[in-house]
Amino acid sequence: MIIIAKSKESAQHIAEMLDHQNPIKPVFVHDNRVALAGVKTLSETELHEVKSEIVEIITNHHSAIKSSRDFHPEDTIIKTPHSVIGGQHFTLMAGPDSIESPAHVEAMGKAVKAAGATVLRGGAFKPRTSPYSFQGNGEAGLKAHRAAADALEMDMVTEILDTRDVDLVDSYTDIFQVGTRNMQNFALLKALGKKQKPVVLKRGMSATIDDLLNAAEYIAAGGNDQIILMERGIRTYDNKYTRNTLDVSAIPVLQSLTHYPIVADASHAAGVSKFVTPLALAAVAAGAQGLMTEIHDDPAHAFVDGAQALTPDEFKLLADKIRQIREAIK
Amino acid sequence: MIIIAKSKESAQHIAEMLDHQNPIKPVFVHDNRVALAGVKTLSETELHEVKSEIVEIITNHHSAIKSSRDFHPEDTIIKTPHSVIGGQHFTLMAGPDSIESPAHVEAMGKAVKAAGATVLRGGAFKPRTSPYSFQGNGEAGLKAHRAAADALEMDMVTEILDTRDVDLVDSYTDIFQVGTRNMQNFALLKALGKKQKPVVLKRGMSATIDDLLNAAEYIAAGGNDQIILMERGIRTYDNKYTRNTLDVSAIPVLQSLTHYPIVADASHAAGVSKFVTPLALAAVAAGAQGLMTEIHDDPAHAFVDGAQALTPDEFKLLADKIRQIREAIK
Amino acid sequence: MIIIAKSKESAQHIAEMLDHQNPIKPVFVHDNRVALAGVKTLSETELHEVKSEIVEIITNHHSAIKSSRDFHPEDTIIKTPHSVIGGQHFTLMAGPDSIESPAHVEAMGKAVKAAGATVLRGGAFKPRTSPYSFQGNGEAGLKAHRAAADALEMDMVTEILDTRDVDLVDSYTDIFQVGTRNMQNFALLKALGKKQKPVVLKRGMSATIDDLLNAAEYIAAGGNDQIILMERGIRTYDNKYTRNTLDVSAIPVLQSLTHYPIVADASHAAGVSKFVTPLALAAVAAGAQGLMTEIHDDPAHAFVDGAQALTPDEFKLLADKIRQIREAIK
Amino acid sequence: MIIIAKSKESAQHIAEMLDHQNPIKPVFVHDNRVALAGVKTLSETELHEVKSEIVEIITNHHSAIKSSRDFHPEDTIIKTPHSVIGGQHFTLMAGPDSIESPAHVEAMGKAVKAAGATVLRGGAFKPRTSPYSFQGNGEAGLKAHRAAADALEMDMVTEILDTRDVDLVDSYTDIFQVGTRNMQNFALLKALGKKQKPVVLKRGMSATIDDLLNAAEYIAAGGNDQIILMERGIRTYDNKYTRNTLDVSAIPVLQSLTHYPIVADASHAAGVSKFVTPLALAAVAAGAQGLMTEIHDDPAHAFVDGAQALTPDEFKLLADKIRQIREAIK
Repeated sequence: MIIIAKSKESAQHIAEMLDHQNPIKPVFVHDNRVALAGVKTLSETELHEVKSEIVEIITNHHSAIKSSRDFHPEDTIIKTPHSVIGGQHFTLMAGPDSIESPAHVEAMGKAVKAAGATVLRGGAFKPRTSPYSFQGNGEAGLKAHRAAADALEMDMVTEILDTRDVDLVDSYTDIFQVGTRNMQNFALLKALGKKQKPVVLKRGMSATIDDLLNAAEYIAAGGNDQIILMERGIRTYDNKYTRNTLDVSAIPVLQSLTHYPIVADASHAAGVSKFVTPLALAAVAAGAQGLMTEIHDDPAHAFVDGAQALTPDEFKLLADKIRQIREAIK
Repeated sequence: MIIIAKSKESAQHIAEMLDHQNPIKPVFVHDNRVALAGVKTLSETELHEVKSEIVEIITNHHSAIKSSRDFHPEDTIIKTPHSVIGGQHFTLMAGPDSIESPAHVEAMGKAVKAAGATVLRGGAFKPRTSPYSFQGNGEAGLKAHRAAADALEMDMVTEILDTRDVDLVDSYTDIFQVGTRNMQNFALLKALGKKQKPVVLKRGMSATIDDLLNAAEYIAAGGNDQIILMERGIRTYDNKYTRNTLDVSAIPVLQSLTHYPIVADASHAAGVSKFVTPLALAAVAAGAQGLMTEIHDDPAHAFVDGAQALTPDEFKLLADKIRQIREAIK
Repeated sequence: MIIIAKSKESAQHIAEMLDHQNPIKPVFVHDNRVALAGVKTLSETELHEVKSEIVEIITNHHSAIKSSRDFHPEDTIIKTPHSVIGGQHFTLMAGPDSIESPAHVEAMGKAVKAAGATVLRGGAFKPRTSPYSFQGNGEAGLKAHRAAADALEMDMVTEILDTRDVDLVDSYTDIFQVGTRNMQNFALLKALGKKQKPVVLKRGMSATIDDLLNAAEYIAAGGNDQIILMERGIRTYDNKYTRNTLDVSAIPVLQSLTHYPIVADASHAAGVSKFVTPLALAAVAAGAQGLMTEIHDDPAHAFVDGAQALTPDEFKLLADKIRQIREAIK
Repeated sequence: MIIIAKSKESAQHIAEMLDHQNPIKPVFVHDNRVALAGVKTLSETELHEVKSEIVEIITNHHSAIKSSRDFHPEDTIIKTPHSVIGGQHFTLMAGPDSIESPAHVEAMGKAVKAAGATVLRGGAFKPRTSPYSFQGNGEAGLKAHRAAADALEMDMVTEILDTRDVDLVDSYTDIFQVGTRNMQNFALLKALGKKQKPVVLKRGMSATIDDLLNAAEYIAAGGNDQIILMERGIRTYDNKYTRNTLDVSAIPVLQSLTHYPIVADASHAAGVSKFVTPLALAAVAAGAQGLMTEIHDDPAHAFVDGAQALTPDEFKLLADKIRQIREAIK
């Protein structure tokens, strides 16, 4: 249940009053709105106590209530040391798929920063389909990534795979990333809900819009509202020419349902570099508030996923077109 | 097998020479290229006769050979009385879902023409999921549609459902449309292959890229090369918030494989008018060479699919943004 | 709206009374039940006239009303010259994919009859993905098929692709078959609705259960209630090891919703002969009332789909196991 | 690369010889077979040293080599205190979805044991779509589950969600279960690879057969070969009448590719109790070597997923039919 109260103070009062009635289910307050998780009706006594302070009671809301626009109508804006994410802002996140060496990540960072990126991506822990594929450089990768981000005055975003690594990764990164395969790793989401750092949450390979919102809610319920949702292509019956199917409709649909920033990853959607640019532009035209892209100066020798990496030059061209499309759809 | 010959004349000669060897499988010639359907190797005798005229033999091609860029490298450009479709051109096709009355289709046509559309869409034969839903106004609809298109100097495009109606529809329309449910109605495709009029072929609900190219080939094999392929959203596991999932990646993928114009239908993909504009812009940003959109001045009372229709004003705004995006991605 | 009346006579009376009120939407009567297509409520006048004859009014029914168990609670049993299909009966339909020659279809028919099949399948018009693949032997195929069926005292079932061929095919076959690609070829379904012969309707590649029931309703609405629904595998994201994904759950789900016989085609689902038997047994264990299987005595040289054909010996073993499973699930 | 050696001793010798050549990629030996992860060719020197001991070199194998029948041709048989799983054995695993109370799990265990189950299932940590749904009773649940299993002389299987809980769960359970949402939680799979206890690995919601085999390989690569693969329904475009689509073809397909036991969960596939029995029977007829089913004596008041639970009586009937089908398909 979401209650729209007459004022901030009323909302606070209603929340306190209802909190002790229901020791298990959490109560959230945002501005003049109160969200009661899992509650469908108020008792007569409860209603009697609070009705003079209420404007409207919404009951047909999504189970992901903190994530809902009904609870939080205005866009969430996330501020990191070097970026502002969400609302009318557009954020470029780019970098190599995996951190290969200190020099390489810095060179890639330099290239993407020159094109307008403010967030440097890179993987130290890699979720690979086969246990025999390169699994990432681990803490050495985190260190190199951090050093490059510091040197370039960029934000660092990196993937976290294991609840046992949360503090380690936290000691390096600016932004956590939860990958497709862990979108419903609820233990990990809960652990990140206890951190006060932004989390990029990638949509699962066959996650519905509702699944994604509920996964975000696991983070939000823990107290962390700095969530960025990422569309990265879904699994469909056709995967001969692209790795996944970029679901551009998810972008405006999510924006209508939630206040969190919605960004896109065209690299994993395409899986082939020649299709990354048109897919990225499509995502931007559909309203994405940011884009994550993999780049590599020597794709043929990339440690991971070279086939889908843009070269620094291709990325620069893409960034220019993105700016023009952003202008066009204003 | 596709053979690149040294000249047009060589190609012609090779085709004639190989034709009689293989009485069943067709041989096609385009410029200096020869396509041999279903042929993997030449006999030694054949090779001996033609090898001096050959530049290259391509064998790893798609089974849809006339549709392939290997056979026909340059974009196909289709000219109708009022439109040029394909290549660097962009074509707006719009109108009501179904032809409701002579006055209505003309009013809708006037509105979309003012916004830049040159093709007036509208259905007289409607493929409805239930037999008890409105099935279209039939020939009366065709007549009203033709009259409006003539009055407005626009092209008419309308759907054909039955091989028995091919001549009837042909006597009215400028462009045939084959719908999603009939993409593999091979009898219908063969019948349209005998006509010398453009055909808009919509991708089937779960058709792969290869299925779509092979369906186009049924038309092309009959002798009709005026084919326009349309991405209109595919069926995936998630259909709560949109009717289908617009597969924007199909646009650049198809453009890399075939020379036919690729257009998009954002209305059926979205299923809800508020998502039509972002999806349409995404398709254009991904490179679509045209867009088909449903409009209605009173969506709540449309005979069919009102929920996904844009109003004339919304369509005008969309058309303006499309022009800007076209400029941005040049 | 489905009305349960107090008696057959009441149902007839209600139907006549309501029929003239609604000249467009059809009214159907079965036993003591009346179905009003597309009607949600009765007017007060109508209700007044008929309420004394009514037991119950059902409004939350499926749009496919003639196909619904709410309208027709008992199983439909279809009688052909040599088979009884539906209810507690189990029908084996088998034969070659395509009719290759008179001698071949007769030899295959002999083999499957010996194993218990009463319906001889075979294609004269083949819906092939590519226009350059073998398209079937046409009327010559129909003739050979008919001759074999007559000689063996079996029923003939064959696929129909084109509305223009309905009378031709009708002049040969006992049972029409509508293939996956034509499940929503509504013109064809309407044409078959005018015939008084059983129709096997195969589920479309990505048809929902509701789509299939509505497609059946196109046939039923025309007056032909001899419908057999066939699950044959759907298209999913995984098609590396099998051609399609046999949706066994469709069998009990359909049986709960409709009264028509539900049969399965394990050959097209598997696409590989070694998986046909386990899938066929699964379908039978799930309650299928019949099975269609492709057989060939020389699969490597079959004109079409040899990879998925069982040999006559494999078919005999399968038929034996089916009988045991039918016994087990009684 | 998989090498078939002339003898056990040869295999051992080849493995030792090749091991030091490749310090990163693991080498596995089973009987007379050697698997070299990620190796495509032997160097000339290597080949020279070992060729006299080799029968055959297989290179076109799956990346999941320990899981492959090419490496381990005979079925893996897993022995737990009260069950033998795999090969020609059939194992019934049943119990409540979540552990509700000590008395309840024991009562349910008693009922399923009477029907032939040897493994008692039950969840103490529940992966729920929403953070506000009941998350399981945690360690108290494990304790009650263990006590019931001990009292009834059954095996205990329970789901593990978090790498940090591996030792805790290990101290109670006989068999670990990895759920659908964690099939590619590689950190968890690696942790379980270090344990010497069976793991039931459920197929991910949109996992391909290859994804599932590679996930199993994460466990196997760590040294734990006691793996049981579970088909539990995949996500497709149609989910109106069932929760998921049971992919029965996965059962024979997996059995042809891997030596691990393949079991099915019809409860989560169906999502509705009335369809559990036909789906379970279908899985058994397709060759499943075991079945996991949820039961509840009062489904309407189950803490989790009551809608899909069988009652003890329904389970008994199912178990009887399963025995008959096992007999039929022998």
